[in-house]
Amino acid sequence: MSSPVLFPYKSTIVLDRSINRHLYLQLCDQIIGLIKSGKLPPTTKLPGSRSLSISLQIHRKTVIAAYDELLSQGWIESFLGKGTFVTNDLPIIKPLHLKNIATSTTIPQERSNFKFNIHPYLDRKAIHVTKDTLLINDGIPDHRLAPTDEIAKIYRNITKKVHHQHLLTYSDIYGNKDLRKALVLYLNQTRGLKINIDNVLITRGSQMGIYLASQLLLQNQNNIIVGDTNYATANDTFINAGGTIRTVPVDINGINTYEIDKLCKKHPIRAVYVTSHHHHPTTVTLSAERRMRLLELAQEYNFAIIEDDYDYDFHYDNAPILPLASNDYIGNVIYIGGFTKIIAPALRIGYFIAPKNVVDEAAKFRRIIDRQGDTILEQTLAQMITQGDIQRHSNKVLKIYKIRRDLFCSLLQDKLNRYLTFEIPKGGMAVWVLLNKEYSWDTVFGEAKKLHLCMNNDWKRYGGAHARHNGIRIGFASLNEEEIHKMIAILVQIFNLLKHKHVVIEKQ
Amino acid sequence: MSSPVLFPYKSTIVLDRSINRHLYLQLCDQIIGLIKSGKLPPTTKLPGSRSLSISLQIHRKTVIAAYDELLSQGWIESFLGKGTFVTNDLPIIKPLHLKNIATSTTIPQERSNFKFNIHPYLDRKAIHVTKDTLLINDGIPDHRLAPTDEIAKIYRNITKKVHHQHLLTYSDIYGNKDLRKALVLYLNQTRGLKINIDNVLITRGSQMGIYLASQLLLQNQNNIIVGDTNYATANDTFINAGGTIRTVPVDINGINTYEIDKLCKKHPIRAVYVTSHHHHPTTVTLSAERRMRLLELAQEYNFAIIEDDYDYDFHYDNAPILPLASNDYIGNVIYIGGFTKIIAPALRIGYFIAPKNVVDEAAKFRRIIDRQGDTILEQTLAQMITQGDIQRHSNKVLKIYKIRRDLFCSLLQDKLNRYLTFEIPKGGMAVWVLLNKEYSWDTVFGEAKKLHLCMNNDWKRYGGAHARHNGIRIGFASLNEEEIHKMIAILVQIFNLLKHKHVVIEKQ
Repeated sequence: MSSPVLFPYKSTIVLDRSINRHLYLQLCDQIIGLIKSGKLPPTTKLPGSRSLSISLQIHRKTVIAAYDELLSQGWIESFLGKGTFVTNDLPIIKPLHLKNIATSTTIPQERSNFKFNIHPYLDRKAIHVTKDTLLINDGIPDHRLAPTDEIAKIYRNITKKVHHQHLLTYSDIYGNKDLRKALVLYLNQTRGLKINIDNVLITRGSQMGIYLASQLLLQNQNNIIVGDTNYATANDTFINAGGTIRTVPVDINGINTYEIDKLCKKHPIRAVYVTSHHHHPTTVTLSAERRMRLLELAQEYNFAIIEDDYDYDFHYDNAPILPLASNDYIGNVIYIGGFTKIIAPALRIGYFIAPKNVVDEAAKFRRIIDRQGDTILEQTLAQMITQGDIQRHSNKVLKIYKIRRDLFCSLLQDKLNRYLTFEIPKGGMAVWVLLNKEYSWDTVFGEAKKLHLCMNNDWKRYGGAHARHNGIRIGFASLNEEEIHKMIAILVQIFNLLKHKHVVIEKQ
Repeated sequence: MSSPVLFPYKSTIVLDRSINRHLYLQLCDQIIGLIKSGKLPPTTKLPGSRSLSISLQIHRKTVIAAYDELLSQGWIESFLGKGTFVTNDLPIIKPLHLKNIATSTTIPQERSNFKFNIHPYLDRKAIHVTKDTLLINDGIPDHRLAPTDEIAKIYRNITKKVHHQHLLTYSDIYGNKDLRKALVLYLNQTRGLKINIDNVLITRGSQMGIYLASQLLLQNQNNIIVGDTNYATANDTFINAGGTIRTVPVDINGINTYEIDKLCKKHPIRAVYVTSHHHHPTTVTLSAERRMRLLELAQEYNFAIIEDDYDYDFHYDNAPILPLASNDYIGNVIYIGGFTKIIAPALRIGYFIAPKNVVDEAAKFRRIIDRQGDTILEQTLAQMITQGDIQRHSNKVLKIYKIRRDLFCSLLQDKLNRYLTFEIPKGGMAVWVLLNKEYSWDTVFGEAKKLHLCMNNDWKRYGGAHARHNGIRIGFASLNEEEIHKMIAILVQIFNLLKHKHVVIEKQ
């Protein structure tokens, strides 16, 4: 035992009665801190409980409780008649300081070949959103229409029922059974599928479906075909899974199946990702001919089709078109969808529909990602589907979005057709707007910001100066009619300004 | 144009007024089906709307609506004065039948080197749970104590507030800001951390934290050290990420740091996974000396520590021991925890605490897994932490679980000590029970099933005939006192039976 050194409590131990932690634990924490930092080296003798209590002006019992705690945790040792000492065999390490974390960390900044670069989501703070700011986006639902009161009511009723108590604990990795049953009926009726419960895995929205599919199908640079341009987050997901992305052109009839055939002749193709109902980002619908051809190619070349039907419910001019998965060919198709767009993006429930063996593998995989879903929310949704609430809500917002689409498109046509071109989308929540080549969206949104019109950064994934097409998605669904008028008015103001500048520049 | 063939509607088109889909869409679906299946080949002439409506005994308008739909979807074409025909250029494919899916699928049964085999979770149906069945487990909370009414109430209040409406839409991939702020205070006070909001990522429970950490740290067979035995799902997660698992022994003081040092001398080590508070499965606490040593080694060999503090809140004999992350050495530590054990397993909210750069990478990764969390639930939790509800609830269940632990351990000791050994765990929700070597848990639970005592299958991950230690975790927290008595009584009955058999066998 070394001789006792001066116990440095005066300057270092500060107890704070205002915070929500027992004094004895605060004392304990701080002594541990002194030990760890080397200020109280091993074998240091600690002051007696009486003297320390006087110095710190606390009750002696508090010191005794702290010492007991330190003893039981192994930081100090007590020898009868000799006193209390910092444990003999504790290694000492020099502390780093928190401010140095960013540079001193030994955790790698990124995986050495962290292969994908995900575009940042809109940081509301970064764009200084005020009450007057009109936020636009690349096509998301209007959360103000979400049936939250109904959801919260059903949610609460479920939690009150004793026979639903089991929903609170760990449960089936495939998802809530009532929801899976409800989905079988719902999807078979609305999408013409012919599935049973074994084909259904509940996910957290479509994105988890894409993630699971890509993890199951892709690795070691397996080829996956997508449209050029394609939904950017899907591309990120495929690259992360270890896939190689091959692109085919997209025209007015969707992705080009002739080009897919050509690619299949050159490379082994593992999967084709398709947003058949409304291609993301250009909103076109895959034609009947190409649908059949794609299924035919899947059989011929033995690839899987990942059909992401993210906005099946939003089709305005005719009935929604049945998905590829509605064929008997579901053996090739993984069908992905979700309720986030119908209900609310924050309530993330989706589905992954596939042959049983694929669903089984996906479920095992999902087990290690986040264990399971929110069973109460899943039960809530099951009830809302069975009662027809979801269908009613979906019809209601469909009407509202159709009016918004029509208004937005007619204003675009009337007020801005000198600067841009577009097709009226048959469905979805956004219009694919192609800017005339003498303008740039970067400039437009730069100016827009000054007028409190802010576009979220997602548009940069498709547009911006580097893109050949000069097209971006502008969402109409999340804005009410007043807001649509306001947005158009601001855009008109901006183009008048830019046109003027443009003319001035041309004259110079 | 070929000449019209007999339209095979009589035998094939069946409209059902009882199902929730418009008749015209049913008709449309079925004609598409006939086209796809080749029964209506390209260029087939369709019957006129009048004659079809008579044959099918439906209104003529229904047929017209269906034909309009088919036209707009491109399945049929109309020529003035000639009639309506199946589109000329549709490819035809032979249908597969749904019953063949499992065998005919081209989606691979599993990834060719799908590397991990996840143990199935308890299938309640498979074990024929009846009302009389007493379900036991390897240590989960009692969901009957979950503060669900409080959660549902706050949840509903939040959805009613206009200023919380924005929570329903897409938001920050790092998680709800109010919850992150609340966590900074909460963790700094209860765990002695020194973090700010940039160090916090909200996850779906601890499991997503482990998943994210493993995806960021491991690939190409990077080495990760875990205890032998270790939490099985963590091992599954590391293997899936591409890591190689290296094991070190676990004794009464936790994982053996001397052996870690030895391994570090032999192999480059990327990370050490540790359940420092109560080692999973054996429940021991990592000693103060080894804690310091582990941090020292992390600095020396430049590895990351994944500290999974899954049951920090449940420590009975002294105050919880501050995590490794409470040092200044957070540059090496990824600290993972969650609220699923305090609130309810189905409400999956957890946290991933690390240096900012690591949190940033993890957030990007999380973006492609499931986009974001349930922002309303996150806001609910933020409010409950700020109001002290979580702390109060946690104190309440802590007392209850301590009583259950004491009862369970004293009954184990009194009634069953001839057959097994155990240490009283200082915390957590389970006891690590070592069966004397002449018995097997397989036999015990085989007999137990007959007496309506069912153990979930998780125990097989640690016990079973193949394990050297013959130990399993038996959870006490989820059972009330009556149920604990019942479980022990059944086990006593079983051991009496087995002992008898045993004696008989020995005599033979």
